[in-house]
Amino acid sequence: MSAGVTFRTAGLIGKTDAVRIAETLTELYQHLRKRGLEVVVEQESSQLLAVVKPEVGTLHELGTRCDFVVVVGGDGTLLAAARGLAPHGVPLIGVNLGRLGFLVDISPTDIATHLDEVLEGRYTEEERFILRAKVLRQGEALFSQTAINDVVIHRSNATSMIEIVTHIDGVFLNSQRSDGLIVSTPTGSTAYALSAGGPILSPSLNALVLAPINPHTLTNRPIVLDGRCRVGISFRPSKHFSAQVVCDNIPSPGLEIDDTVEILKEERPFRLLHPVGYDFYEILRAKLNWSSGYRV
Amino acid sequence: MSAGVTFRTAGLIGKTDAVRIAETLTELYQHLRKRGLEVVVEQESSQLLAVVKPEVGTLHELGTRCDFVVVVGGDGTLLAAARGLAPHGVPLIGVNLGRLGFLVDISPTDIATHLDEVLEGRYTEEERFILRAKVLRQGEALFSQTAINDVVIHRSNATSMIEIVTHIDGVFLNSQRSDGLIVSTPTGSTAYALSAGGPILSPSLNALVLAPINPHTLTNRPIVLDGRCRVGISFRPSKHFSAQVVCDNIPSPGLEIDDTVEILKEERPFRLLHPVGYDFYEILRAKLNWSSGYRV
Amino acid sequence: MSAGVTFRTAGLIGKTDAVRIAETLTELYQHLRKRGLEVVVEQESSQLLAVVKPEVGTLHELGTRCDFVVVVGGDGTLLAAARGLAPHGVPLIGVNLGRLGFLVDISPTDIATHLDEVLEGRYTEEERFILRAKVLRQGEALFSQTAINDVVIHRSNATSMIEIVTHIDGVFLNSQRSDGLIVSTPTGSTAYALSAGGPILSPSLNALVLAPINPHTLTNRPIVLDGRCRVGISFRPSKHFSAQVVCDNIPSPGLEIDDTVEILKEERPFRLLHPVGYDFYEILRAKLNWSSGYRV
Amino acid sequence: MSAGVTFRTAGLIGKTDAVRIAETLTELYQHLRKRGLEVVVEQESSQLLAVVKPEVGTLHELGTRCDFVVVVGGDGTLLAAARGLAPHGVPLIGVNLGRLGFLVDISPTDIATHLDEVLEGRYTEEERFILRAKVLRQGEALFSQTAINDVVIHRSNATSMIEIVTHIDGVFLNSQRSDGLIVSTPTGSTAYALSAGGPILSPSLNALVLAPINPHTLTNRPIVLDGRCRVGISFRPSKHFSAQVVCDNIPSPGLEIDDTVEILKEERPFRLLHPVGYDFYEILRAKLNWSSGYRV
Repeated sequence: MSAGVTFRTAGLIGKTDAVRIAETLTELYQHLRKRGLEVVVEQESSQLLAVVKPEVGTLHELGTRCDFVVVVGGDGTLLAAARGLAPHGVPLIGVNLGRLGFLVDISPTDIATHLDEVLEGRYTEEERFILRAKVLRQGEALFSQTAINDVVIHRSNATSMIEIVTHIDGVFLNSQRSDGLIVSTPTGSTAYALSAGGPILSPSLNALVLAPINPHTLTNRPIVLDGRCRVGISFRPSKHFSAQVVCDNIPSPGLEIDDTVEILKEERPFRLLHPVGYDFYEILRAKLNWSSGYRV
Repeated sequence: MSAGVTFRTAGLIGKTDAVRIAETLTELYQHLRKRGLEVVVEQESSQLLAVVKPEVGTLHELGTRCDFVVVVGGDGTLLAAARGLAPHGVPLIGVNLGRLGFLVDISPTDIATHLDEVLEGRYTEEERFILRAKVLRQGEALFSQTAINDVVIHRSNATSMIEIVTHIDGVFLNSQRSDGLIVSTPTGSTAYALSAGGPILSPSLNALVLAPINPHTLTNRPIVLDGRCRVGISFRPSKHFSAQVVCDNIPSPGLEIDDTVEILKEERPFRLLHPVGYDFYEILRAKLNWSSGYRV
Repeated sequence: MSAGVTFRTAGLIGKTDAVRIAETLTELYQHLRKRGLEVVVEQESSQLLAVVKPEVGTLHELGTRCDFVVVVGGDGTLLAAARGLAPHGVPLIGVNLGRLGFLVDISPTDIATHLDEVLEGRYTEEERFILRAKVLRQGEALFSQTAINDVVIHRSNATSMIEIVTHIDGVFLNSQRSDGLIVSTPTGSTAYALSAGGPILSPSLNALVLAPINPHTLTNRPIVLDGRCRVGISFRPSKHFSAQVVCDNIPSPGLEIDDTVEILKEERPFRLLHPVGYDFYEILRAKLNWSSGYRV
Repeated sequence: MSAGVTFRTAGLIGKTDAVRIAETLTELYQHLRKRGLEVVVEQESSQLLAVVKPEVGTLHELGTRCDFVVVVGGDGTLLAAARGLAPHGVPLIGVNLGRLGFLVDISPTDIATHLDEVLEGRYTEEERFILRAKVLRQGEALFSQTAINDVVIHRSNATSMIEIVTHIDGVFLNSQRSDGLIVSTPTGSTAYALSAGGPILSPSLNALVLAPINPHTLTNRPIVLDGRCRVGISFRPSKHFSAQVVCDNIPSPGLEIDDTVEILKEERPFRLLHPVGYDFYEILRAKLNWSSGYRV
C-alpha cells in the first residue's frame, strides 16, 4: 500500500472491439472528471466515448502525461497497454468487463469505489517484470519486442520439425525436438505455459519458466530459472525448417535456420495498482475453479 | 571457485549397506592421509574401513572438527549427512559408487584427482537451502525436522482421505483433497516432486515448489513460491483421517486432525563443493536421458 | 432403450450417513408403493425411513428378490451396492443428493418423473464391467475382491519403497519404482486414475487403464489394454517393503514381498439404468467444468 | 504365427534420403533373389541399388504384384508405404537402419535370418487399423486422406486462435480452445499423441485417442473412444481463424471457418509381419528407456 502520490492526470484505454464497453468507459470518464482529474483518452478508445471532445492522445502521450492509466477490457488489452506504457513507468489499473482476469481484477460495478480509494492513496502497488526477445541474423537485430506474458519460439508450419538448442547465460542446457518452447514470466505462467504443463509462479518471483511444447523426449520437463538469466536459442538443422518467435501475441518475421534468439529481462518492470485487499490466490481460486472438486 | 582456505582435517562418511564401498572408502582414506590431512571417520562407516585404528567420530564430532567431509554413496546418503552437518557449516563433497547422482557427482575413478584439486583450492562452492517442518499440537512442537529435498504431507493409510488447507504467510491459498502435498526445495525438485508433475528448479533459485499428489481437482497444479514463504498446513475434517509428515525420508508420528504443520526455510544452508567444471545441466541431461529422443 | 420387462419389486438403498437423505428416501418409497410395486428396503437404510414397518432385506436378499434397485447417495454408495448386487444381475438406478455423480445421475427433484418412465419401459440400459483382484500367497488366495472403479496396488507406508513388476497375460510389461499402480475400468477412469494422469475412457469400451502413481521413471505413462487381459503383479525386493491392494475402497491385508496379485475381468458386468436422454458427455462436461475456460 | 502362404514375389522400398541405406538394400535384394524370389523395387528406391537393371515398379504396382513388401528406413518410411499399400492388402516387413522403431523392428544385422523365417512361414502377423479424414466444404470433400498414426487438426498460424467443436457419432462431446486436437490410432499413440499427454494404447485395441493440444481448459484431458466412432470436427467463430488438417505428415489445404472434418476408421487395416518372438512391450521398454530409472 502506498500514499503521498497525488494523481492529477488519468489515462483511459478500452478494448476497442468489445461490446458493452462504451457505457463503462463513459461512466469512468465522467467519474474521473467529477473527481477533478484531467483525463486523456487513448485515441482509438475515444471513438467509443459518449463524450463531447474529450482530450485524446496516443499511447506514448498517455505515458508521458498521465499519473496512472485505467485499462478496460480483458488481460490481452492490459498486456498491450503495459507493453506500450512500461518505458514511461506509469502505473496501470485493470478493469474487466464482467469476467475476472488475472490482470484486470476490478469488476465494472466496483470501479467507482476502487478508483476513489486509489485517488486517496489506498491501493497495493505491484511490479511485474518484462522480457525482451531479439532475433539476431548475422549479428544484426532483425526483430526486437517486449513480452509481459511470454516469448514463444515455435514451428510456424504444420509439417515442419524444429530442434531447439537452448543456452542459459552461455551454458548449454539442452537440445530438443518439439513444437516449440515457451519462455514465460511469472505473469505468463497462468497463461499459455500452464496449458503446456508449466507450474504456476508467484507473481513477485524473480524467475522464468522454460516450458517445452509437446517435446519428443518425455523427460523434457518445465524448468524454472533465475529471472536474470539470458536465454539463448538456436536451431539444429532439420527438414522443412519453419519457425517464428511470438511475443505475447506479436509475431516476428519467419526465422532462418541460422538465426538466434536472445531473451532477457528488461530493466524496467511495469507497475500495476490493485484495490486494497487484492489477493492473487483468490483470483487463482476463482479462475481455476479450485472450489469445485470434480470427484465425489 | 574459491581459494585461501586451508583444509587440514577431512571427515569421511560411507553408505553402510552398500556393496563395493569398502575399497573406495579405504583408498580415499589413504589418499587423504598421504596428502598430510587428519581424517576423522564417521563411526558406523569406520567398520567398513580396512585400516588399523582410524580416528573415529560421531556426525556431530565430524561437524565440529572437520574442514570438509567426503560422503561416499547415493544422493540419499548425502542428504542424511547434510541434514546432520548443516548446523556446523562444514562443506560436503559427494562421491558416488559408479552411478551419477544429483548431489554425489564425483565418480570413484576421478576422486583422487578431484580431491587434489579441492585441496589446492580449485573447486566450485554451492549453497543449497534447507527446510524445517514442525508439527504443532495445541501450540507445542510435536516433531521438528529438517529436509534437504522435501517435506511431504500425506495420507498414511490406503483408504483414508485427507483435505489439506494451505496458507502462505498466513494467507489462505487453497484447500485440496488429494493423496498429499510435497513442499520441495530446488534440490528436491528433481526427486519426488518431479514424479508428481512438478517443474525442475535451478539449484540456486530461492524458491519452493508446492506439488499436490494426485489431487481430486485437476486444476490443482504445482505452484512455485518465494523461498522465504512460511507454508502453513492444516486439515479439514474427513473420514478416516490418517496423515503423516515425512522430511526427506524421516516420518513424523501420526498426525491428529487438529494438528498443524509449519514449513520454513532454515537460516543456514548446507554447503556443497563440486569439482572445477561442475555443470548442473550436464547432470540433468545425463539423469533424464535428454540425449535420447524416443521418437523417430 | 428397452421394453417388455415388467418391474414388480423394487429395492431401495440409501447412503446411511448422509444428511437430508431421509426425506428423499421416504418420498421414493411412497412413490414406488403408490405405483403398486413391492418395495424391499436395505436393512441399514431402513433406519432412515419415516415409514411404519417397511419390508426389509440384506443386500443379498435385494439381489434375489428385486427387479431393480434404486440407490440414493454418491458414486461411492452406488459402487458398494453394485459390487454386492452384480452377481444377481439386478439393474441399478442411481439418484444423487443434489450433486451430480458419474453414476448417480438422477437428481432428487426429477426422480418421480424418471422412475415413472423406467416403470413404463422407457430407459437406457448400460453394462459396465467389473474387475476381480486376488492376492495369492504360496498359491492360495489370501484375498479376493471385486472392483467397479479400480484395483490399486500401493505402498502402505510413507517411507517404504516398492518396485512393481507387471505381466500382461503372462508376458513381462515392465518393472517400476513408484508409489503404486492403478488398474482401472472405464468406469474408474474418471476417478482416481484421472488424478494420476490417466485418460478418460468411454464407459462402453472393453479396456483397462494401467496408470502408475508417481513413477520414478518419467516415461512410465498410462497404458490402455484390452479389457480381457489378465494383469499379474509381483514385487522386486526393496527396502522396507510395505504394500496393499485396495479394491474401490476396500483394502486387502498387508502384502508380503513374495505375494502376487492377479487382476481379471469378472464374467458378469453390472447393469445400470439411465433415464431416457442419458448423455455421458453431458455429465463429463458438467463434472469437469468444460464450459468454463480459465484463460482470457 | 502363420503358415501355408507361399511368398513368390517380394517388394522392396527404402528411405531415399538415408545414408548407409544402399548397402542394406542391395544385400536384401540379393538375399531375396538367392532365395528364388522375384523382387520388384519401388522406382525411387531403385536408384540406390547397386544392381544392374532390377525390376522396378510404382507403389501401386508393388501393391498389385507382391506377396509382401520389405520397407527399409524409419517409422516414417513405413507409414508412407503402409498408406499406399493398405488398399492392396499386401503385408509389410519393417527393417530399421540401426535405430529401433515402433514399426521397423528388425535390425539390418538380423534381416537375413528373419527373412528366411518369414519365407518358411514362421512369423507373427498383425493388423493395425487406419483412419481416413475428410474435409468437407459445403457438402463436398475438399480433401480425403488416410492416416496410420494420427489425424491432427491444428491452428496453422502462430497468432490464430481456434475453438474446436467435437461430435462423436453425431453427439456433442465438447468445445475447446486449444492449439489443436490429435485423433490417434493405437499405432499413433506412441507418437505425437504421447507428447501431448495421451496414453499408450495396446496396438491391437480397437480404440481411438482424442488428445487436445495445449487446451485452455486444464480439465480437457485425453479421451479414449471406441475405434468405430465417427469423429466430427467443426469450428466456433474465432479471431484470425487459420487451421489445417494433417494426416500423418500430409497437410490439407487451409481450412475455412465453416469447413467440417470427418474422421472414420477405414474398413481395411494394414498388415505387418513381425519376426517370431516379436514383443511390443520389449520395444516399448527400449524406446521409452524404462530400464533406467532416473532417481536414486
